[in-house]
Amino acid sequence: MEEIGFLGMGIMGKAMAMNLLRHGFKVTLWNRTLSRCDELVEHGASIGQTPGAVLNKCKYTIAMLSDPAAALSVVFDKDGVLEQTCTGKAYIDMSTVDVDTSSKISEAITLKGGRFLEAPVSGSKKPAEDGQLVILAAGEKALYEEALPAFDVMGKKSFFLGQVGNGARMKLVVNMIMGSMINAFSEGLVLADKSGLNSQTLLDVLDLGAIANPMFKMKGPTMIQNSYSPAFPLKHQQKDMRLALALGDENDVSMPVAAAANEEFKKALGLGLGDLDFSAVHEIVKGAQRPS
Amino acid sequence: MEEIGFLGMGIMGKAMAMNLLRHGFKVTLWNRTLSRCDELVEHGASIGQTPGAVLNKCKYTIAMLSDPAAALSVVFDKDGVLEQTCTGKAYIDMSTVDVDTSSKISEAITLKGGRFLEAPVSGSKKPAEDGQLVILAAGEKALYEEALPAFDVMGKKSFFLGQVGNGARMKLVVNMIMGSMINAFSEGLVLADKSGLNSQTLLDVLDLGAIANPMFKMKGPTMIQNSYSPAFPLKHQQKDMRLALALGDENDVSMPVAAAANEEFKKALGLGLGDLDFSAVHEIVKGAQRPS
Amino acid sequence: MEEIGFLGMGIMGKAMAMNLLRHGFKVTLWNRTLSRCDELVEHGASIGQTPGAVLNKCKYTIAMLSDPAAALSVVFDKDGVLEQTCTGKAYIDMSTVDVDTSSKISEAITLKGGRFLEAPVSGSKKPAEDGQLVILAAGEKALYEEALPAFDVMGKKSFFLGQVGNGARMKLVVNMIMGSMINAFSEGLVLADKSGLNSQTLLDVLDLGAIANPMFKMKGPTMIQNSYSPAFPLKHQQKDMRLALALGDENDVSMPVAAAANEEFKKALGLGLGDLDFSAVHEIVKGAQRPS
Amino acid sequence: MEEIGFLGMGIMGKAMAMNLLRHGFKVTLWNRTLSRCDELVEHGASIGQTPGAVLNKCKYTIAMLSDPAAALSVVFDKDGVLEQTCTGKAYIDMSTVDVDTSSKISEAITLKGGRFLEAPVSGSKKPAEDGQLVILAAGEKALYEEALPAFDVMGKKSFFLGQVGNGARMKLVVNMIMGSMINAFSEGLVLADKSGLNSQTLLDVLDLGAIANPMFKMKGPTMIQNSYSPAFPLKHQQKDMRLALALGDENDVSMPVAAAANEEFKKALGLGLGDLDFSAVHEIVKGAQRPS
Repeated sequence: MEEIGFLGMGIMGKAMAMNLLRHGFKVTLWNRTLSRCDELVEHGASIGQTPGAVLNKCKYTIAMLSDPAAALSVVFDKDGVLEQTCTGKAYIDMSTVDVDTSSKISEAITLKGGRFLEAPVSGSKKPAEDGQLVILAAGEKALYEEALPAFDVMGKKSFFLGQVGNGARMKLVVNMIMGSMINAFSEGLVLADKSGLNSQTLLDVLDLGAIANPMFKMKGPTMIQNSYSPAFPLKHQQKDMRLALALGDENDVSMPVAAAANEEFKKALGLGLGDLDFSAVHEIVKGAQRPS
Repeated sequence: MEEIGFLGMGIMGKAMAMNLLRHGFKVTLWNRTLSRCDELVEHGASIGQTPGAVLNKCKYTIAMLSDPAAALSVVFDKDGVLEQTCTGKAYIDMSTVDVDTSSKISEAITLKGGRFLEAPVSGSKKPAEDGQLVILAAGEKALYEEALPAFDVMGKKSFFLGQVGNGARMKLVVNMIMGSMINAFSEGLVLADKSGLNSQTLLDVLDLGAIANPMFKMKGPTMIQNSYSPAFPLKHQQKDMRLALALGDENDVSMPVAAAANEEFKKALGLGLGDLDFSAVHEIVKGAQRPS
Repeated sequence: MEEIGFLGMGIMGKAMAMNLLRHGFKVTLWNRTLSRCDELVEHGASIGQTPGAVLNKCKYTIAMLSDPAAALSVVFDKDGVLEQTCTGKAYIDMSTVDVDTSSKISEAITLKGGRFLEAPVSGSKKPAEDGQLVILAAGEKALYEEALPAFDVMGKKSFFLGQVGNGARMKLVVNMIMGSMINAFSEGLVLADKSGLNSQTLLDVLDLGAIANPMFKMKGPTMIQNSYSPAFPLKHQQKDMRLALALGDENDVSMPVAAAANEEFKKALGLGLGDLDFSAVHEIVKGAQRPS
Repeated sequence: MEEIGFLGMGIMGKAMAMNLLRHGFKVTLWNRTLSRCDELVEHGASIGQTPGAVLNKCKYTIAMLSDPAAALSVVFDKDGVLEQTCTGKAYIDMSTVDVDTSSKISEAITLKGGRFLEAPVSGSKKPAEDGQLVILAAGEKALYEEALPAFDVMGKKSFFLGQVGNGARMKLVVNMIMGSMINAFSEGLVLADKSGLNSQTLLDVLDLGAIANPMFKMKGPTMIQNSYSPAFPLKHQQKDMRLALALGDENDVSMPVAAAANEEFKKALGLGLGDLDFSAVHEIVKGAQRPS
């Protein structure tokens, strides 16, 4: 795995490709806007004019795209991945997409004899730059093992989760727990405040106990200040809650706490808070207003 | 604060008094069963024959009793704390009791000119032994400051929370968040399992992310094995959820996630799981059975 | 049961006493403001100067008071019911009070050899005038049977429910179901409206089907017009939900739907809607605003 | 509208076609198993060998089929409705299908110049026989008006709801309210029983009050006896709750009571109660067991 193609030079992709370069991999880049590749070219990267061209050159190609639409477009459009897929070519999609999108790409690739791995990541800009992502891979086991040297420089830990779709499912489960937790946390903050307790003291007490976690530490101070600069938009959090509840529905899993949390997120959407950070559900718990 | 009285030699009280002795405080002990004081006497502690006798001897007396009934009994019974309370005597109750109990004790003590501080702790046996408790004090601020040298050897951190009752309230808020979280966590574990994901892998992924916390790390492996040895009994957790919801009710705070979690705990009580660990709510999420 | 005392000439009591008079009972009235008795005196009623005086004169005395405080005051205050209670005297409290209030009155009366029945009613002004109340009696069975001639002219149906407190409990259960139903109804109204369906048509369709009921028929048109003139104030409905949930708590009954409805009512209280009709929870389901 | 085609001789279709015959309409029948048409032929009906043949003969054709699959098959299969659809032909689908199915059929029919009305009904066997159905029509308004003479003999009331899909949506809203109500009712029954109140008395009290409704009257006695013979299977009720919640999701309508009810139905599915009547959610509220 000396030569790797890399599609997508967004914030995440750029940081990840840079780590590959720094650790001695030969990387061929493609991005819709080619100018975003300049910095990496200075560090030794090559350029492919189309996704297909990258695939044609490299045995292994990684993609890190912004959403399901971009992930599908890069594969299925003219001069795309699929046109150059053939026996022996390996495609590793690290974008965050839903189960259906991932399955569609997997089927198309493998039908043409290609090899496929989905490998969405947990972690955002900083962990990407520091090579500290958590990688949730699923698909062809042998390809996972061949990809480990690359995963090791991009992430602090990789998991192989079985069949295609399990990467997406694992993210849903984690995000569902997170969505319930931010509601539980917000309820605690409001209850403390309304009961005459100091909010900052609650944060300090929580941080010393059994349920201390980075999210409370990070979001608590901004929630107290009613500040919800979007790290993870509420509408995406609600979408993940909804998909997780649907997954529960398929499997007869009753999840009343997640369901209650979901309805709070929907109240927030109804008030137009969808583009704020998911911690803005705090406004609902506080009893938020809608402009007349 | 050289000489301190200490009432209650349960697991917690014994460990806390030992830390006082080790750090050079003179300690006079009382316990309903006096034999439990032997080990500490070997380390230099004195004995008082009744709670009143301890108070009579010491300017500062700390109590660490098992429940509200014991906390009330030690104060109000014959030869109890109240009989010897007078101007200048200070009483610090570190037992975990409800707001009403604490208020009743506070009123009685201060009515006789005594000084009062409630100071329930967060943390169990191990932190007590290691002097790593978190102390949630409320009542007389000046007394809190005088007590800090003692708190510093028993705990890693102390908070002064204002008026009497706030210590109990803070514990309720923390435990309510914890109760919702264990439900959210359980729902995630069951959803993962039923969706074909590996439970242990979910624990590993959670432990690397933004919601990683000691409780998930500690309870996850035992929940997967359906093992619920009681660290914190489910019936106590449910009682705290109920009291927290009642506190919300008094203050018009809507807490749908905590309410949903509470109803799950009640389902667990209905199945006779109240004496197991609070993580046994996992059985309800899994769809537990009641013996015919 | 020819001569009956009657305490309390509120809207309900006046209508009930009038029905007794019309059907040939001799009635002796007392009310805190005596002028409210004038109309009934014209119809042949006598006056007692105090609750005690009424009891002294009559073997059977009925009370219909506004709230638990009034119910307690009439019994325990100077010149009250209790002073004149002795063997053979029967007291029938038809006020709507909680279990504790009813039990306290029952104990005091029976301790002095008196006989007691609680008999709260279902139904408001119109049914009271028309003798169409539903009477939920509990306490002494023999007294219930002696009182039936009077119940028959005040109500369309009487029930004997067993021990004192069961009348109050039955009202809680009914009001809990009602509270969940008004939420379910409101959710349906909002969902219809937001999905492009006509609200009035939904009301018409509901009224023709298996869940048609007088409450939907009565509240639907006003809810659509955002009109919440208080027939049953929301704060009382929420109090009954809370007490019903507490009753479930005592008996390990999990009631997630009632709990979710209760949290919606609490959101409404938080927005200051407590004095409106309980159907004003509709504002919360619609996504109501709080004035800045 | 003298001559009407009628596709589907299930329990419902047979009763509806019989009412058309009795009121003087000429009816041409088709059913997959033709023998089910015999009784109606004795009453004067004609037979068509295929759905297409019926359409070819009649200007107006009504369908009453068992599920979406059957509804699609009759239209799109060989010798089906679509083959004979042309300008002037009118097709009225009275089957209960989802929005997508109805839209697909509508598009295909109108693309070929045909006219379309969806007209699902509320009511089961008995109302169908008695001509007492409630008809929820949507699609072409003019066709609705032409169809009224037929609707009038099959139903007691017809509604025109606007665009295709609104019939299905209206049913979802009604069934969602019903699903929350059966949960609220069950919680009340269990709370009464566990609190020492008589279940039958609760039913009697409910039946005299503002929330009295046919469903409580019908289901109450069987629920008390733990008898759940399926009039409307729980799995279908849960599917409707899920679809209603999804409809709420599309429109940012928060419905916490319906969501809580849905999770209870899912618990019932998890215990294998899906084929019982939807009132079997009562088993969950009571704290049901799963066989080991």
